[in-house]
Amino acid sequence: MTATTALPIAVLCGGVGAARFLSGLVRVVDPARVTAIVNVGDDAVFHGLHVSPDLDTVLYTLAGMVDETTGWGVRADTSHVQEALARLGRDTWFRLGDADLATHIHRTALLREGLPLSGVTERLRRAFGIGATLLPATDDTQATMVRTDDGWLAFQDYFVRRGSRDVVREVRFDSGTRPAPGVLAAEVRFDSGARPAPGVLVAIAEAEVVIVAPSNPIVSIGPVLAVEGVRTALVATAATIVAVSPIVGGQALKGPAAAMLASLGHEVSAAGVAALYADFLDVLVIDEQDADLAPRVTALGVRPVVAPTIMRDAAAKAALARAVLDAARAHGG
Amino acid sequence: MTATTALPIAVLCGGVGAARFLSGLVRVVDPARVTAIVNVGDDAVFHGLHVSPDLDTVLYTLAGMVDETTGWGVRADTSHVQEALARLGRDTWFRLGDADLATHIHRTALLREGLPLSGVTERLRRAFGIGATLLPATDDTQATMVRTDDGWLAFQDYFVRRGSRDVVREVRFDSGTRPAPGVLAAEVRFDSGARPAPGVLVAIAEAEVVIVAPSNPIVSIGPVLAVEGVRTALVATAATIVAVSPIVGGQALKGPAAAMLASLGHEVSAAGVAALYADFLDVLVIDEQDADLAPRVTALGVRPVVAPTIMRDAAAKAALARAVLDAARAHGG
Repeated sequence: MTATTALPIAVLCGGVGAARFLSGLVRVVDPARVTAIVNVGDDAVFHGLHVSPDLDTVLYTLAGMVDETTGWGVRADTSHVQEALARLGRDTWFRLGDADLATHIHRTALLREGLPLSGVTERLRRAFGIGATLLPATDDTQATMVRTDDGWLAFQDYFVRRGSRDVVREVRFDSGTRPAPGVLAAEVRFDSGARPAPGVLVAIAEAEVVIVAPSNPIVSIGPVLAVEGVRTALVATAATIVAVSPIVGGQALKGPAAAMLASLGHEVSAAGVAALYADFLDVLVIDEQDADLAPRVTALGVRPVVAPTIMRDAAAKAALARAVLDAARAHGG
Repeated sequence: MTATTALPIAVLCGGVGAARFLSGLVRVVDPARVTAIVNVGDDAVFHGLHVSPDLDTVLYTLAGMVDETTGWGVRADTSHVQEALARLGRDTWFRLGDADLATHIHRTALLREGLPLSGVTERLRRAFGIGATLLPATDDTQATMVRTDDGWLAFQDYFVRRGSRDVVREVRFDSGTRPAPGVLAAEVRFDSGARPAPGVLVAIAEAEVVIVAPSNPIVSIGPVLAVEGVRTALVATAATIVAVSPIVGGQALKGPAAAMLASLGHEVSAAGVAALYADFLDVLVIDEQDADLAPRVTALGVRPVVAPTIMRDAAAKAALARAVLDAARAHGG
C-alpha cells in the first residue's frame, strides 16, 4: 500500500457544488483515497424509476459526462423518451434525458432484484470508470420534506416543480426501510433516522480528513447528518474536519440555500454555516470576500481559512481542493 | 346507434400479421366496431420494464407509427437509452427504441400502481388516438414457453435472442395471477389457464364476425385460445368465424410458424391450419396459390374461400379485410 492510499479522505456531498469540488479533489489526490458520502434525501421516483439526483450528479461529473452548463445531467443528452412520455400524458416536469434514464432504469432494475442502493452505486461507479468510492448516505429510504405555506412538499416538488419559489418554514427527513424485493411500499419511520449505508461510519472514523463539500447545509448536508450515527461519528473522529462554505458574500452560489437559511432563522453567511456545523467542525474555508467574517467563525470555535472558493474552471476546482487539504494539514499538524 | 356500430367484429391477434390485417380492417369498417383480442404470451420483462410486443405492434400499427420495414417498433425511433444501457453492462439483445421504451415505462408504472393490463392498454389506445378496442387476451400473466433440444426457453429467448433457430419440440403456456401492487413475484399456475381479460368473452359472444388474424397458430393464436373460456366461447358463439391462413404455399409469410408446425407434427399448409381451428372455424381464407387445398379444407368441415392474402400494401390489406367480411357474409347469410 502506498502512502497516498493509506490516508483516506471522506467527503460529505450534496449535488452540483459537491460534484465540482470532488472533480478538483480527484485531480490533486489519488482518487482511491476519496470516499464520497452522498445525500439521497432528494431521491424520488418518476415514472416508476428510482432517481438519485445527487448521486447521479457526482457520477456524471466524475465520469466527465456531466452537462457543465447546468452542472447536472449528461452532456448533449437527448430527451426522446421524455417527449414520448409527455405524448402518453405523463407529467414531465422533472427533466430526464435519454442516457440519464438508462441510469435510472438500471438502478431501478437492480433495486428490484434486491441489491441495496450502495451496491447499485458501486456497480454504477465501476461502469462509469470512477476511481473514488461513492456511498449513498443510507440504503434506507430518506425523504427530505419541506413545509411551505402550501403545506409539506416532497423535496423535488418544492425544488424542481415549483422552482424553489416557496418560503421554507420547516424541514424534516422521513426515513424508512427500503422495501425488500417484491415489496414496493416502504414502511416510513417518522420517529427515527435512516441507518448509515455500509462503509459510511467507517469512512468517517478512519479518515485523515473529512470534508464537508460546499453544498446546501439544510437539504444537502442536513440529510447526511440526520443519518443515524453520522453526527456522532463526526464528533468522535480523529480526522480533521474541514467544510467549504457554500455561502459567499451573503449569497448561495447555486440553489435556494440563502433563502432557506434565512426563512429558517439562520444567518445567511459563512458564520451562519459555521454555527450549523460548530459541534464537529475544525476548519471552515471561507471566500476571500468574506474575510471580515473570520473573527466570528473563530468565536464559534471553528478555525477560519480564507481562500478563493468560486470554482470557475478546472484549475480553480483543483486549487480549492488543495486549499482545503492544506488547511486540514495546517490544523492537524 | 348506426347500423355499422351495431355489428361488432372481434379479431384474435398475434403481432405483425394481425396488425397489418387490422390496419386494413379499420379502413373498410368503422373502427368502433372492431375489438382486437391480442396475444400476451410473449410479453416479457426487460430491465424491469413490462414489454407487450404484440399489443405494441398493434398499437403502433393502428396509430400509424409503426416501422413498416420491420413491421414492429416505432418508425425512425432512436436507441439512445439502449446504447446507454449497454454501456452500463446490461444485455440488450431485445431491441428497444426510445419512443418504444416510453410505452414500456408508462405501462410498467401503471401496472405497479395496480391498473390491470387491460386498463393500461385502454389508456395507451386513447393516448395513441386509436378507434378500435384493444384487449389483452388476459390480465393474468401468461408465458409462452417452448421446449427445444436445449430445454425449455421463454418465448423471447427462443424467438429474439436465439433467432428462432431451435427446433421446437413442445409448447406450453404458463399462467399465473398478475402480482398485486407492491408484490413483484407472480404465483405461476402450471395447472390451469389464464383468465380472460374483461370484455374478451363478451366480444366473442356478441360479435357478428370473429376473425382469426393471419398469425402463428401455435405461439400467437395458441395462447389466446389457451385462455380459460375462449375456445368454448368460440365454439358457442353465433358469430361466423373466419380465419386467414398465415401459411401460404407451404411457407409462413413471417416468422417461424412453418418450421414450428412441422416439428410439432402438423401439416405445414392452409389445411394444417384448418385442422388446428376445425372445432370452431366456419371459414378459412386461403391464398390463391393454395386453391388446390380447398377440398382438403372442406373435408375438415371448414368452408374454404380463395383470395389474395399477401398484404403488400395498404390497398391489399383493405382488400383482404373486405374478402374476409364478404366470406363471413356469404357464410352467415
